[in-house]
Amino acid sequence: MEPIKNIPRLCRILGYEFTDLTLLDQALTHRSAASKHNERLEFLGDSILSIVISDALYHQFPKAKEGDLSRMRATLVCGKMLAEIALEFKLGDYLKLGPGELKSGGFRRESILADAVEAIIGAVYLDRGIEPCRQLVLNWYQSRLKSIKPVDQKDPKTLLQEHLQGFKKPLPVYTVVKTVGEAHNQTFTVECMVKGLNEPIVGVASSRRKAEQIAAAQVLELIKK
Amino acid sequence: MEPIKNIPRLCRILGYEFTDLTLLDQALTHRSAASKHNERLEFLGDSILSIVISDALYHQFPKAKEGDLSRMRATLVCGKMLAEIALEFKLGDYLKLGPGELKSGGFRRESILADAVEAIIGAVYLDRGIEPCRQLVLNWYQSRLKSIKPVDQKDPKTLLQEHLQGFKKPLPVYTVVKTVGEAHNQTFTVECMVKGLNEPIVGVASSRRKAEQIAAAQVLELIKK
Repeated sequence: MEPIKNIPRLCRILGYEFTDLTLLDQALTHRSAASKHNERLEFLGDSILSIVISDALYHQFPKAKEGDLSRMRATLVCGKMLAEIALEFKLGDYLKLGPGELKSGGFRRESILADAVEAIIGAVYLDRGIEPCRQLVLNWYQSRLKSIKPVDQKDPKTLLQEHLQGFKKPLPVYTVVKTVGEAHNQTFTVECMVKGLNEPIVGVASSRRKAEQIAAAQVLELIKK
Repeated sequence: MEPIKNIPRLCRILGYEFTDLTLLDQALTHRSAASKHNERLEFLGDSILSIVISDALYHQFPKAKEGDLSRMRATLVCGKMLAEIALEFKLGDYLKLGPGELKSGGFRRESILADAVEAIIGAVYLDRGIEPCRQLVLNWYQSRLKSIKPVDQKDPKTLLQEHLQGFKKPLPVYTVVKTVGEAHNQTFTVECMVKGLNEPIVGVASSRRKAEQIAAAQVLELIKK
């Protein structure tokens, strides 16, 4: 395997000196390149990112409701945001990819870049523990945390409604078509019908509201294309 | 509002003494009971639980693949498992619910119980920080972590197939009914049909496999009742 390029430069960009550089090496290794790849580190990094961002949002927005906090968190930890961070780090230049991925431009693929950022977070966590890792992630997210607002974030039902209103179309119709189970442990099946769709899309969940959100999210996916 | 019942006993059961008991009080307060309720704490607790369990699984299974780790984590942090823990704590006896929820048996509802466990985790985290919180959660999960195995975990499609085979029913049929978007950015609509259902359940996602899993998960929810 080729040696990793200019690792000291990458560490300067990341703002972190690894005690154990093999962790960084592994975090940069896609599964197409070697058997010791970054997926397990990504698994760890995903959870660490979540608690660091959750804690930051919790304290930054002492009056925000849970729904707003969750939506802001989802925005900050989504693949698109992580890929953006990866591009700032020029992470694509440092990734180890297998021949197939190299040929098809894997170093530019959003999901590969996002996964590598999570893997680096996991590597830092293993290298020096939660607090140094938290400080680093907060540095990376400084401007993003500064600019995020609760009102920017909306749930699928709201987004669907606004999307339809934007095109002057009628509002979606939600119908509970089935309820199964005992009173305290029910499952709701909800249909969401939107003009222009051939048939309603179904959402199933443990509450009517959740089932409606699931259905709305899927309708959005469909009609936004 | 009624005073919380026998809080010292609850602390003994949880295995934790709060420095700030108002945090525990808030964690036990459902949004139906007061404006200062447990949803923000639940938001925090959810992420803390995730990193504690992720870290434990990462070290307990040094050779497990990311997929197996993710499935084990999903099992350990799911609502059903959290509700089980809540029942062990007899948490329903300590919850503060509004009149409507009290009347409809909210203290037995799985989602309310699960959310309260996450809120308590969030409260402990705020009370004394990540390490004491981690130790407590690991105590609660000791036997569950001991018994979990990578092979126990299965995806919705596998679970659905096995469920149907167990009842000697025909296998589910998956059909791609729609594909929208350009080649590298498609959305797939898949129908999953199972004998005994009146109509197929639809899954929509960015890959055929994910759409099938979404549909299978919803069919499972429906037929398991």
